[in-house]
Amino acid sequence: MAGNSIGQLFRVTTFGESHGPALGCIVDGVPPGIPLTEADLQHDLDRRRPGTSRYTTQRREPDRVKILSGVFEGVTTGTSIGLLIENTDQRSQDYSAIKDLFRPGHADYTYEQKYGLRDYRGGGRSSARETAMRVAAGAIAKKYLAQTHAIQVRACLTRMGDIPLEVIDWAQVEQNPFFCPDPARIDALDELMRALKKEGDSIGAKVTVVADNVPPGLGEPVFDRLDADIAHALMSINAVKGVEIGDGFDVIAMRGSENRDEITRAGFQSNHAGGVLGGISSGQQIVANIALKPTSSITVPGRTVTRDGKEVDMITRGRHDPCVGIRAVPIAEAMLAIVLMDHLLRQRGQNGDVTIPLPRG
Amino acid sequence: MAGNSIGQLFRVTTFGESHGPALGCIVDGVPPGIPLTEADLQHDLDRRRPGTSRYTTQRREPDRVKILSGVFEGVTTGTSIGLLIENTDQRSQDYSAIKDLFRPGHADYTYEQKYGLRDYRGGGRSSARETAMRVAAGAIAKKYLAQTHAIQVRACLTRMGDIPLEVIDWAQVEQNPFFCPDPARIDALDELMRALKKEGDSIGAKVTVVADNVPPGLGEPVFDRLDADIAHALMSINAVKGVEIGDGFDVIAMRGSENRDEITRAGFQSNHAGGVLGGISSGQQIVANIALKPTSSITVPGRTVTRDGKEVDMITRGRHDPCVGIRAVPIAEAMLAIVLMDHLLRQRGQNGDVTIPLPRG
Amino acid sequence: MAGNSIGQLFRVTTFGESHGPALGCIVDGVPPGIPLTEADLQHDLDRRRPGTSRYTTQRREPDRVKILSGVFEGVTTGTSIGLLIENTDQRSQDYSAIKDLFRPGHADYTYEQKYGLRDYRGGGRSSARETAMRVAAGAIAKKYLAQTHAIQVRACLTRMGDIPLEVIDWAQVEQNPFFCPDPARIDALDELMRALKKEGDSIGAKVTVVADNVPPGLGEPVFDRLDADIAHALMSINAVKGVEIGDGFDVIAMRGSENRDEITRAGFQSNHAGGVLGGISSGQQIVANIALKPTSSITVPGRTVTRDGKEVDMITRGRHDPCVGIRAVPIAEAMLAIVLMDHLLRQRGQNGDVTIPLPRG
Amino acid sequence: MAGNSIGQLFRVTTFGESHGPALGCIVDGVPPGIPLTEADLQHDLDRRRPGTSRYTTQRREPDRVKILSGVFEGVTTGTSIGLLIENTDQRSQDYSAIKDLFRPGHADYTYEQKYGLRDYRGGGRSSARETAMRVAAGAIAKKYLAQTHAIQVRACLTRMGDIPLEVIDWAQVEQNPFFCPDPARIDALDELMRALKKEGDSIGAKVTVVADNVPPGLGEPVFDRLDADIAHALMSINAVKGVEIGDGFDVIAMRGSENRDEITRAGFQSNHAGGVLGGISSGQQIVANIALKPTSSITVPGRTVTRDGKEVDMITRGRHDPCVGIRAVPIAEAMLAIVLMDHLLRQRGQNGDVTIPLPRG
Repeated sequence: MAGNSIGQLFRVTTFGESHGPALGCIVDGVPPGIPLTEADLQHDLDRRRPGTSRYTTQRREPDRVKILSGVFEGVTTGTSIGLLIENTDQRSQDYSAIKDLFRPGHADYTYEQKYGLRDYRGGGRSSARETAMRVAAGAIAKKYLAQTHAIQVRACLTRMGDIPLEVIDWAQVEQNPFFCPDPARIDALDELMRALKKEGDSIGAKVTVVADNVPPGLGEPVFDRLDADIAHALMSINAVKGVEIGDGFDVIAMRGSENRDEITRAGFQSNHAGGVLGGISSGQQIVANIALKPTSSITVPGRTVTRDGKEVDMITRGRHDPCVGIRAVPIAEAMLAIVLMDHLLRQRGQNGDVTIPLPRG
Repeated sequence: MAGNSIGQLFRVTTFGESHGPALGCIVDGVPPGIPLTEADLQHDLDRRRPGTSRYTTQRREPDRVKILSGVFEGVTTGTSIGLLIENTDQRSQDYSAIKDLFRPGHADYTYEQKYGLRDYRGGGRSSARETAMRVAAGAIAKKYLAQTHAIQVRACLTRMGDIPLEVIDWAQVEQNPFFCPDPARIDALDELMRALKKEGDSIGAKVTVVADNVPPGLGEPVFDRLDADIAHALMSINAVKGVEIGDGFDVIAMRGSENRDEITRAGFQSNHAGGVLGGISSGQQIVANIALKPTSSITVPGRTVTRDGKEVDMITRGRHDPCVGIRAVPIAEAMLAIVLMDHLLRQRGQNGDVTIPLPRG
Repeated sequence: MAGNSIGQLFRVTTFGESHGPALGCIVDGVPPGIPLTEADLQHDLDRRRPGTSRYTTQRREPDRVKILSGVFEGVTTGTSIGLLIENTDQRSQDYSAIKDLFRPGHADYTYEQKYGLRDYRGGGRSSARETAMRVAAGAIAKKYLAQTHAIQVRACLTRMGDIPLEVIDWAQVEQNPFFCPDPARIDALDELMRALKKEGDSIGAKVTVVADNVPPGLGEPVFDRLDADIAHALMSINAVKGVEIGDGFDVIAMRGSENRDEITRAGFQSNHAGGVLGGISSGQQIVANIALKPTSSITVPGRTVTRDGKEVDMITRGRHDPCVGIRAVPIAEAMLAIVLMDHLLRQRGQNGDVTIPLPRG
Repeated sequence: MAGNSIGQLFRVTTFGESHGPALGCIVDGVPPGIPLTEADLQHDLDRRRPGTSRYTTQRREPDRVKILSGVFEGVTTGTSIGLLIENTDQRSQDYSAIKDLFRPGHADYTYEQKYGLRDYRGGGRSSARETAMRVAAGAIAKKYLAQTHAIQVRACLTRMGDIPLEVIDWAQVEQNPFFCPDPARIDALDELMRALKKEGDSIGAKVTVVADNVPPGLGEPVFDRLDADIAHALMSINAVKGVEIGDGFDVIAMRGSENRDEITRAGFQSNHAGGVLGGISSGQQIVANIALKPTSSITVPGRTVTRDGKEVDMITRGRHDPCVGIRAVPIAEAMLAIVLMDHLLRQRGQNGDVTIPLPRG
């Protein structure tokens, strides 16, 4: 299978380069009869898009999405949904500076190795701009999950550099430019961002994404486990270098007696597992963390080579995010929603409406 | 797609329960003309199998694999390879103790929710016994990668509980029962295992898996990135709760100027990226870490409920691994090899033999 | 995707060569809770197997199928089902006669071109023996369809050479060695078969396969249409050179006013469409025809070349079917059942239980 | 997998309704470095589009295709190619006449059964307008096949109603509005079309599609055979009710001694097989035929029912093709090219460059 698709029954396929005429997406497998408008998608696109605050890149894209098919008289028809976002901010820039060199930490070198050539304008297909279509497709999944199963998918920033953030208040997350759930730390984040801007450097981040009201039974043994598919989807986001489910890497130092989630008639007594047991959802909250690397698009000079092997020092000019992890928040939500939606349809397909009167937590 | 398959051009599909008559596997997409014998597979199966040392479960399975098709006159024919391992150690046990309850930390509850019933004998399909077929299929991939591209896939234990292990000496890894690359720590591991045995408890572990000589250009934008597919494959291993590529979660606290891998005419100057840039292999060593939870099969009593909602305290009797992470070493190798092999064939299919004279690290 | 699999949610993957130790199959995606025994599969295997009558090849294989996983306490568990048939009749033959030449009309030449080598024993993977596993897998689908939706899949011979056969009496089909539904023509078939035996030649055949009680709504626009998937499945059977849905090639000479199926309150007034409109089942009987070529394994000498380019005349000795089309009857049923089952699960996954009170025919 | 995609390594996914704002397509898996312009696609689109002659529907669509991604500096980059055609001829029609009834012979009834609702404007997703994107995607495949392997894919009309057409002169095919290869019969076709126009009726057709210079070795045993995938692709075209490979249904009446293609040092002595043996290309010309039903969009009144079960007589007004089979010619080429391209990449992926010095026909 070519690589620009994700999902089985709910399947998202995307195209588009940073500086091409448009980005697009086909969302296949959306059940019929779901109310859907462009406004439903625009909200999450606005949360993701650059230029939203002074902390993210100043590219000015309205990211206005159009629904080109699959919706009739306000509801989905069950056929494939075509989405399109035109790139309006394709400044006719001079790319001669980066055309013939491989920016360190970027995909320039690997794309050139893979394909023998590359679209060097703004990273081409490897640009994070590609994630706009993920967010648009994910918004469809989020709406379906919410409307048909009251499943809620949310994400927030849980660490930036050395600043840990507690998930204290979900309501706060949309009230600040960092998607920060920890009101007491907002000033510290602000300070760090200013310092990075001044230094021309960047910093990594951790994002936590959760889903509530996920019914038990989603996920397939043994390879298409729910957690494996979540790991795939989240690791496919630009800059992500690690994925955890539940306690994640903390389990290494734990005892079995401490890590297993005991069950009483009141339900599970803890959620170390992050809502997945044996690859299948348990009905508890799904919890995943991702680690995002600091962007390599910085003005601190870095060594690299040109296509013909000359060594140069380079800096990345232009639009610049000191912490790309912030914008990963809506993207992580989108990816988790896409995976859950796909497994919901698969479970319904294979097992119909299995619901057994078991005690649940 | 039903969930018991992994890979696209190189595709592995498995079946089998812990206490059924046999485990099996179909490996589809192996190129023709590769010498292959059962002995090639048996070596890794022996490394994985229980009862190898006093530290792993005492189930006595020879795990003797048979090649049933796809090999003729000692070489692969290009057609699907059928593999079979008979379960010889199906003791006619009394399962009445676990038949009607959900062992905490196991998949009993989620399988029952998903399917409405379950094979309760030894965990059925959710048993780690299933991983034997992954190892057998992975051995085919390892052989192909080694023989055709000199790609070497290796793994070792890099932490158990609070004991960190340095990758000091790969030669040591096969010389001790822990796959430990740090000779000075073997006694500490031994001591911890004895203590856990006595307590009837278990501990988590970290495993590192690497691949050398991987050509640049493997991996597909944007969803089927090499790192995303690695994350999927590794997270699908029983008990894995976290996956890192390269620096993994350490990137959160790093600066961009520190994290990006600079390039000189001598090649890359560091490998924070773990051999993947923009989802595509860079030609550097591929590096991944996984976190394995402590097994819940312990004799420390734990609370749970029965199918009819009665609360009980239970202990897991019988065969028991204090650290299942140890046995994950050959499994992690197998999964990485399967992903690399699949992407190697995909790259060859889409791009043929792209090789450009670039300076490499 | 490697080529030894078929289906999406209901997925069948097979392995095995004509003269290897065994044939096998993994059936993934079977819903849980369906009663299933080896006897359920054996019935169709016995209908397919050689040596059943004096008219089919005299290979003596009991074709005894074993269920190795996915069934517990008599019912399916929802996990992958492993099936195995051991090859008991691997006579240690002398293959030197065909080892180095390409039998005309066989896959010898194309396999050698594709793979650079081939298993020459009895055709290896290209042997019709491979269809035994299709029949076994199809029997699972047939049972599921019958039990859960009262869907009945049946096939019969509708032409052999110049002898057309009317579908007069389905009850007769299992009562004669030709799967012939036209009692008056059985003697003519018998006579033709005797003549062919004497001549050492073979003849083509037409098989019709139908499904009743298929609910409307199965099939996906625009590529995975139900009729397109049926065409794929039926054309994948050895020796099939043509597939028709409904009126098939007769539509070429028809007028639109004659071909369209009118609808009244009593339902559809005809079934020229063969139960599929716009790629989606209409609730009418699904009707497909296939054309099977005469086998090339005959004793009439034929010209060919050896691997090193020498011209030779050859005859195919040994076991021999004058009309392989006869044995295609249970195989065609199996393939149609596999496609219907897959689309049934897909429809349930995507659209749940859509049932609108429309007048039906 | 949702149904709007076809192919594995070369994968085409489409969207769009007859009267929506646009049609679109993502072509994934195109190797890098292939020169490609919109003009390359426009030629085939113009051959397919309605209004080209007085014999096809008078819908006036320029069908102007835009390439939105995947091409940079005139060549493909290896990333996904987004294509878009805006629907300019969406007359604001009154659909009240067909909104609540099921046109006989159309997909109205089955779409409504499948989805519970439908886009009734011009057939929505079930309209043949969808095939424009197939032609655009197929043009990419045709260009790649021609440029890299000199493979030529062509089709022509070989029968309309009772008028058989011989493939006498390929050069003639593009010189007449019927894609007719038989100059002597053009007047007869013309006459039949006029008569049908007058009667308000329609007629079926047969189209033959061939590919030359296809290398041997394409196709995968046992399900993804080249002929099975061709059958799938061709049967997925609107109005197709039958598919033949090589001699097709004529094999039923043939003897094995007559049907098998003998081989001499000069190569194959005939091509009854249509270029496929055992599901794998033989290096001979690939030959397939399809049967297209007469369109049901005619002005001869037909009986049907409304959504609420009332019986009505209806006629289909507006744009109207007496023989939709004519326009299937470029579509059939496109579908064959898509399948060949996919298998070419798969063969290269799995088997690399297998070329053995065998005598070929």
